[in-house]
Amino acid sequence: MIRHTVVFKLKDQIDSLQEQAFFEAALALAAIPGVQKFEGLKQIGTKNNFNFGLSMEFDSAEKYAYYNNHPAHVQFVQEHWIPTVQDFLEIDYEPLEPVAGNS
Amino acid sequence: MIRHTVVFKLKDQIDSLQEQAFFEAALALAAIPGVQKFEGLKQIGTKNNFNFGLSMEFDSAEKYAYYNNHPAHVQFVQEHWIPTVQDFLEIDYEPLEPVAGNS
Repeated sequence: MIRHTVVFKLKDQIDSLQEQAFFEAALALAAIPGVQKFEGLKQIGTKNNFNFGLSMEFDSAEKYAYYNNHPAHVQFVQEHWIPTVQDFLEIDYEPLEPVAGNS
Repeated sequence: MIRHTVVFKLKDQIDSLQEQAFFEAALALAAIPGVQKFEGLKQIGTKNNFNFGLSMEFDSAEKYAYYNNHPAHVQFVQEHWIPTVQDFLEIDYEPLEPVAGNS
C-alpha cells in the first residue's frame, strides 16, 4: 500500500467560491482507476502554515504512476492546482516493516 | 475525528539498533487510551527530506490533549524523540466538510 498525501495552502486571493470549485475538481480525482480511500482534509494543527490536505491510497507503485500520468490528473494540476495553490508538501507513506524481533 | 501525523528524519548517527529501539518505544504509544489507528510509516516520496512518519486518530480534541499530556507520551518525547529525531513536521487533519451544494 502506498498512501499519497499532499498538504497545502491556497493563495490568499482565493475566495470561497473558487475554493469550492477547487475541491469539487479535486474530488473528481477519486474516480481515476486505482485511487482508494480518497480524502479531502482540513489541516488544523498550529505547527505549520498549511490549511488543507488530500490523501489517497494505491495498491502498487504502478497504480500510483497510472494516476499521476492520467489525463484527468494532469488537467487538474494545470487548471486547478497551479492557479489556486500557493505552497504545498507531498508526503508519501508505506507501512513500516514490523520491528525486527517483535514479529 | 482528528488525525495526528508527524513526518520526521532520524539523526544521521542513529544506527539500526537505535532505530529499532525508537520504533519499539513509539509503538507503545498506541496503548495510551484514546489512540486509534496507530501507524508506523516509512516516508518514500522523493519531494521531501523526511524518512519516517507516525499517524494516529482521536475521536475528539479532548482525547488528543489527554494523549499529549499523558506521562507515557511525555516520557517518550524526552527519552526517545528528542535524542533520536533530527527534524520533523506535525500535520493534523480533520475531514473536510462536504463541499456546499454537493451534499
